[in-house]
Amino acid sequence: MSRFFKQRSQKAGLPPGSLIHIGERLEGKPEIKLIDYDPDHYEEKAIGALQECFPFRDRPTVTWIDIEGLDQAVLQPLGDCYGIHPLIQEDILNTDQRPKADDMEEYIFLVLKMLDIDDRENLIKAEQVSIIFGSNFLISFQEGFKGDTFDEVRRRLRNGKGGRMRKLGSDYLAYALIDGIIDRYFAILEKLGDQLEELEEELVDDPTAESMRRIHHLKREILYLRRSVWPLRELLGMLEKSESPLIQESTHIFFRDIHDHVVQIIDTIETFREMLSGMLDIYLSSLSNRMNQVMKVLTIIATLFIPLTFIAGVYGMNFKFMPELNWRWGYPLVWGVIVSVATGLIVYFKKKGWW
Amino acid sequence: MSRFFKQRSQKAGLPPGSLIHIGERLEGKPEIKLIDYDPDHYEEKAIGALQECFPFRDRPTVTWIDIEGLDQAVLQPLGDCYGIHPLIQEDILNTDQRPKADDMEEYIFLVLKMLDIDDRENLIKAEQVSIIFGSNFLISFQEGFKGDTFDEVRRRLRNGKGGRMRKLGSDYLAYALIDGIIDRYFAILEKLGDQLEELEEELVDDPTAESMRRIHHLKREILYLRRSVWPLRELLGMLEKSESPLIQESTHIFFRDIHDHVVQIIDTIETFREMLSGMLDIYLSSLSNRMNQVMKVLTIIATLFIPLTFIAGVYGMNFKFMPELNWRWGYPLVWGVIVSVATGLIVYFKKKGWW
Amino acid sequence: MSRFFKQRSQKAGLPPGSLIHIGERLEGKPEIKLIDYDPDHYEEKAIGALQECFPFRDRPTVTWIDIEGLDQAVLQPLGDCYGIHPLIQEDILNTDQRPKADDMEEYIFLVLKMLDIDDRENLIKAEQVSIIFGSNFLISFQEGFKGDTFDEVRRRLRNGKGGRMRKLGSDYLAYALIDGIIDRYFAILEKLGDQLEELEEELVDDPTAESMRRIHHLKREILYLRRSVWPLRELLGMLEKSESPLIQESTHIFFRDIHDHVVQIIDTIETFREMLSGMLDIYLSSLSNRMNQVMKVLTIIATLFIPLTFIAGVYGMNFKFMPELNWRWGYPLVWGVIVSVATGLIVYFKKKGWW
Amino acid sequence: MSRFFKQRSQKAGLPPGSLIHIGERLEGKPEIKLIDYDPDHYEEKAIGALQECFPFRDRPTVTWIDIEGLDQAVLQPLGDCYGIHPLIQEDILNTDQRPKADDMEEYIFLVLKMLDIDDRENLIKAEQVSIIFGSNFLISFQEGFKGDTFDEVRRRLRNGKGGRMRKLGSDYLAYALIDGIIDRYFAILEKLGDQLEELEEELVDDPTAESMRRIHHLKREILYLRRSVWPLRELLGMLEKSESPLIQESTHIFFRDIHDHVVQIIDTIETFREMLSGMLDIYLSSLSNRMNQVMKVLTIIATLFIPLTFIAGVYGMNFKFMPELNWRWGYPLVWGVIVSVATGLIVYFKKKGWW
Amino acid sequence: MSRFFKQRSQKAGLPPGSLIHIGERLEGKPEIKLIDYDPDHYEEKAIGALQECFPFRDRPTVTWIDIEGLDQAVLQPLGDCYGIHPLIQEDILNTDQRPKADDMEEYIFLVLKMLDIDDRENLIKAEQVSIIFGSNFLISFQEGFKGDTFDEVRRRLRNGKGGRMRKLGSDYLAYALIDGIIDRYFAILEKLGDQLEELEEELVDDPTAESMRRIHHLKREILYLRRSVWPLRELLGMLEKSESPLIQESTHIFFRDIHDHVVQIIDTIETFREMLSGMLDIYLSSLSNRMNQVMKVLTIIATLFIPLTFIAGVYGMNFKFMPELNWRWGYPLVWGVIVSVATGLIVYFKKKGWW
Repeated sequence: MSRFFKQRSQKAGLPPGSLIHIGERLEGKPEIKLIDYDPDHYEEKAIGALQECFPFRDRPTVTWIDIEGLDQAVLQPLGDCYGIHPLIQEDILNTDQRPKADDMEEYIFLVLKMLDIDDRENLIKAEQVSIIFGSNFLISFQEGFKGDTFDEVRRRLRNGKGGRMRKLGSDYLAYALIDGIIDRYFAILEKLGDQLEELEEELVDDPTAESMRRIHHLKREILYLRRSVWPLRELLGMLEKSESPLIQESTHIFFRDIHDHVVQIIDTIETFREMLSGMLDIYLSSLSNRMNQVMKVLTIIATLFIPLTFIAGVYGMNFKFMPELNWRWGYPLVWGVIVSVATGLIVYFKKKGWW
Repeated sequence: MSRFFKQRSQKAGLPPGSLIHIGERLEGKPEIKLIDYDPDHYEEKAIGALQECFPFRDRPTVTWIDIEGLDQAVLQPLGDCYGIHPLIQEDILNTDQRPKADDMEEYIFLVLKMLDIDDRENLIKAEQVSIIFGSNFLISFQEGFKGDTFDEVRRRLRNGKGGRMRKLGSDYLAYALIDGIIDRYFAILEKLGDQLEELEEELVDDPTAESMRRIHHLKREILYLRRSVWPLRELLGMLEKSESPLIQESTHIFFRDIHDHVVQIIDTIETFREMLSGMLDIYLSSLSNRMNQVMKVLTIIATLFIPLTFIAGVYGMNFKFMPELNWRWGYPLVWGVIVSVATGLIVYFKKKGWW
Repeated sequence: MSRFFKQRSQKAGLPPGSLIHIGERLEGKPEIKLIDYDPDHYEEKAIGALQECFPFRDRPTVTWIDIEGLDQAVLQPLGDCYGIHPLIQEDILNTDQRPKADDMEEYIFLVLKMLDIDDRENLIKAEQVSIIFGSNFLISFQEGFKGDTFDEVRRRLRNGKGGRMRKLGSDYLAYALIDGIIDRYFAILEKLGDQLEELEEELVDDPTAESMRRIHHLKREILYLRRSVWPLRELLGMLEKSESPLIQESTHIFFRDIHDHVVQIIDTIETFREMLSGMLDIYLSSLSNRMNQVMKVLTIIATLFIPLTFIAGVYGMNFKFMPELNWRWGYPLVWGVIVSVATGLIVYFKKKGWW
Repeated sequence: MSRFFKQRSQKAGLPPGSLIHIGERLEGKPEIKLIDYDPDHYEEKAIGALQECFPFRDRPTVTWIDIEGLDQAVLQPLGDCYGIHPLIQEDILNTDQRPKADDMEEYIFLVLKMLDIDDRENLIKAEQVSIIFGSNFLISFQEGFKGDTFDEVRRRLRNGKGGRMRKLGSDYLAYALIDGIIDRYFAILEKLGDQLEELEEELVDDPTAESMRRIHHLKREILYLRRSVWPLRELLGMLEKSESPLIQESTHIFFRDIHDHVVQIIDTIETFREMLSGMLDIYLSSLSNRMNQVMKVLTIIATLFIPLTFIAGVYGMNFKFMPELNWRWGYPLVWGVIVSVATGLIVYFKKKGWW
Repeated sequence: MSRFFKQRSQKAGLPPGSLIHIGERLEGKPEIKLIDYDPDHYEEKAIGALQECFPFRDRPTVTWIDIEGLDQAVLQPLGDCYGIHPLIQEDILNTDQRPKADDMEEYIFLVLKMLDIDDRENLIKAEQVSIIFGSNFLISFQEGFKGDTFDEVRRRLRNGKGGRMRKLGSDYLAYALIDGIIDRYFAILEKLGDQLEELEEELVDDPTAESMRRIHHLKREILYLRRSVWPLRELLGMLEKSESPLIQESTHIFFRDIHDHVVQIIDTIETFREMLSGMLDIYLSSLSNRMNQVMKVLTIIATLFIPLTFIAGVYGMNFKFMPELNWRWGYPLVWGVIVSVATGLIVYFKKKGWW
């Protein structure tokens, strides 16, 4: 459950804008990476003291500050330098945030979830990524558990001299980061899809109580995935249709492209949900079927032998005057009766289709 | 049920605006606390006679009158002084109100539910909080069962000389009160989440009829919580987008922030509901599984021994002429038959996967 | 079913505007009551011949004509006098109408359902109330089964000299009538809520087949109630937001107030529905549980005694050469075997948690 | 299924506007009836050769051409004469059309379903009715299986000299035809309602496997009815709000009236659906209940006699040394044991509430 | 599952616009067919080298380039020639696209699914078709598994000298292609409908575990079909209402016509879904019924013979002093008891309706 809802009781009663970290916490100091670029120029450096970032603020080049590990001690001065509203700062530290986009005029604030399947526990794990971008800067915050997930984007920036990546501004950079995050969702869908397929085969071949547990597990994972994906529809719709001057006309089509991806992911999630509910039906009906099977065997055996045992019981009575007992052919006769009763019942069962 | 719907039959037929208290009633006189502040000035006093409040109405400073305990004798003069519409007064006394916001031009009227889990009965209890705020005043009404829940806000006002809390007007104060109320909801969600988690473990390990009752109990609590939370979405959307001059531009972002919180609470509630319905499926399928288990044991035992008992019965018959009875190896032979029938059946069961 | 859908076959093929009474019919002549008032003046009289009403049409005072019992012979001349469209007249006679509001410019036409629980049959019964109000008149039509339900309003008019009731126009009178009707719904919800609560306790203590019937009964009543309430949301939304000159600005807030009531009733109905569906789950799972219980007892007894009976059967065989029969301690030995088998099985059951 | 979806494979690959008849086909030549009227004038004739219709096109009087039986040979020249778009002509021949309204500026095209319950098979049968009306003409197409369903309207036209029917134009005629069609739906609802009621009583008294089949049958019929009714909401909404000059202001209220009827039909259909799903629950729970009943009887008998049979078995053993066998009171003693065991069990069952 | 979701992991981390083929791949070189036409002129040729297409770009005649088999080596130069956005090129190669329409101003881009039932596996298979049309050109991309599906359209173009097909522009050609694709859906619905009908009969006559599997299979196919059809509603709504100059006024009605078809397909799909869920109910209730049947037989036999066997057991005891054993009529008397007990039980069962 803790995945679905994080403890935030320590915040109750604090004034708004209180910078309290909610969620699991990374140990050690946050790692800060700065990239500054324009079509012709590229500079990348690891930042030790936060103050090294500040001079970049007033340069016309695009500055990307990536921070891994959430720490109030880093967030606050940075926020003051770039004029980030305290409530936004609070949202960055609260890792139980729902994905959303806020247009703050000076900058746009985005919250997303980076997802990963933990293969050992077979659980989807989420890490919150916050992105703030203004006219010439982008700041990204990662919780930092999964290592750096933006390496690919950095590589393209580094090598893309004169390319689209370097020519377009911070809004395109934001797009590239979101695109990287959402590409991961497809990988997760693939894994879930494989598990669904396996499960379906198992259900057709040999459903067990374990199958039920797996259905339930998949249902929960899909529920979890869904919580991260649904709000993206709104987030991307907002970006795609935004009239903010921070998003250039030519970037809109890129946001529309991810919007399409998100719609497809949601479509697939809903399909998976329907399939799971179909599987539950199969499982339950197979339970009933099996019970029927068991009951039939019991009924056949009992129905066959109980009357026969009765017959045997009758001739096991010790009455003095039981003429049959003294007949020469009494015993074979009884066998005859037994065999014909048994045959009759078997014929009856065959007709009922139970045998 | 009484939690879900309060007796209001005593009101039927009365004219609108009749001030009738609906709901449980606090004993004793209502307690009135007044705070008057601006950035530089702070005054706090407990009010004995209501009339002490009236002079504050015409001062430019923000006046917050907090009333614990609903009483028509207090409400009416206060309402007359501040020009509160009789229908609004009626709504304040009717504690079975649905959360809502009414923009009355001169002032804005809000109804919310303060929630608490009663740990002894494990039930969510609600207390109605009504807030009226105008340009320079805010009046809050609490039913008063749970003690004063706004102490935290008062403390921040008292100590916040020159701070945001004191600089911003009555709209920000309203925000702070709502924020305090909604923070509590997270605590309740945490408790429900813990119970869900426990329940889920119980269901996987050893579901009993008691589990069903707990599922049902949680369902009802979540239903109850939901009734208080859903209307908040509309309420906060109204505040966030309001064009009333009573709400300053800079306060809108704060209402948006609580709006986000409420959306997240609703999200979590819906997730909990889906989980509960999944748990019901698990519970029901475990019932079926268990029945299958029981039936299998019965079937195995019966199928095994009924035919054997029949065999024994046959040789318990008292016919005079039963050649087998006189055979030297008759008895061991019968044992042989019994053992082989039993073995055959066991092999059959193993093949069926029942043993 | 007849409550859910009334015979209207006699109308098929008739031209629109045909005045055919649909629904059960009150015997006797309709009773007509007229009240004419303004802030200073009040006149009330029972009308014998319809023509007595006509002079009031052209007076500036508000005229309220209340007709109990639907009769085409009354409706038509009245309709002609006040210029009521034939289709509206048809709707008034058709008591199977869905609640709705039609703004006809000259007047506004409303259809509502007055509800009552018939305690003997424990069924909700509906009576259609139609209201037409123009600038200086209001005509109300009741089916007339339940006696006059507007007495309370009349009393307030009579005694309210100079009060709001008398000062405000026909729109406020319409509001007062609707309010009276909707207040009754709360009483019905209370009764249904009590029955739900009783039912829930019964289900927890001792669910029987009767419980299922009661669940079904409550479901139907709530379905019936819902049909009358849902359309009210639209009706009141229309009145609240109407820009018709017939509704004064100051009356809007009163319609909003009933709108809130209706939303709360709908909320409660939906809550009741969810609870009932939860109760159905409890009932069904209790059936399964009980079956499990029964099966367990059967299984334990059968599993315990069938093998023992087999053992006894073996030594009941009449073979000549059965050495055990002649052993000195054969009989006690067999008892020993029996006791140990039984003990073993009981231990096994205890371990399975069945005992 | 064929009712739900008609073969249209013969059309695949043909260009749009291909006039291919889809659906069952009436034998014989289509029957054409023409009525031409204005307030003072009325002419009615059966048409042999289509060309007789053409002169009426240019007269200012309203011309109603009613065609029973769909035939491309009739449709095409008529379509050419009145300028009907080929796609519309195609739609008329395709009797698997969904009800809809198309405003083609020159004329409005409507598709509706005339429904009837076939009492023998207890199935709802649909016949497609297409209506095209322009400023001074209305053409109606019926499949022609059920005879002429517009006789009533014709009668009113014939006798209505100077009446509304004759004064208002082709739009009012269209209204009258639609009204006639929808009146039939009420009759069908009545029949379904009666069947529902019967079914409900049957379910309470004595549910059988046949009940399940009847539930399913009713579900399908309601599904079928629903398909014809739902799209009407949109169709009538379009007519009611249309700003086409073809629909006069005064006719709008008539379309609104049928709109209300359709909403009520939909309401009732949804109520029926809910009731049916409630009946399914009753049926399924009654199955479980009955199983419980059967199991209880089995359990009681088995639990009672299996232990007793064991006791009898013990004293049926043939051991030489069984002291009890020689006791004087052994036999009565055993009876004593048997009776007390049986009594004990019965008491136990009574306590469990099983007896 | 692979049908529901295609592997696209190889794309993760690539920059947007990367041309990576996603989905199964056709072997061999893509086949390119070019048709160039206007009302008077018609030219058709198979293209070997892509460059042969380029001169047609600047001619005023409509050029249709149809490409079967997706290949980046063909797509890229063509895209450069016609100015197709890299993201669109990426979408063409990604065959796991959701149907959609993008208006790119210079051209309109459409993605659809061509569906076919693979009769051997009884599975619906989808092939992605992408269509790009501008003022004087249309380019269509097929995956190419099913052979060329546009032959019919080509034939009409070839023979349609001076006809609508040749006179209207590329937008009408696009319409014709979409129409051809959607006509196929009706064929699929027909097949599914036939299977539904068969399944329903099977369920009424003799439901088996196989029926459950068939219900599940149909459910999945309908789910699959639905995924391809639902987004078409939006796609065609966009085309029908588009104000793009690329779509002529006179073509809108044709798009509306397909829109109607799509709505009808969706309607039918939803009906099928409801029917399937009804069938599941029938199947599950038939399982319960059958179990009841089996249990009844078991109960009757056991209840009948277990008491009788007990009686026989009693007189099989070997007590020395059992007076009955020595009675002259003991044995017949016991038979009498047995017969009357059996008769009594049978009468009881008859009364219960179990026999």
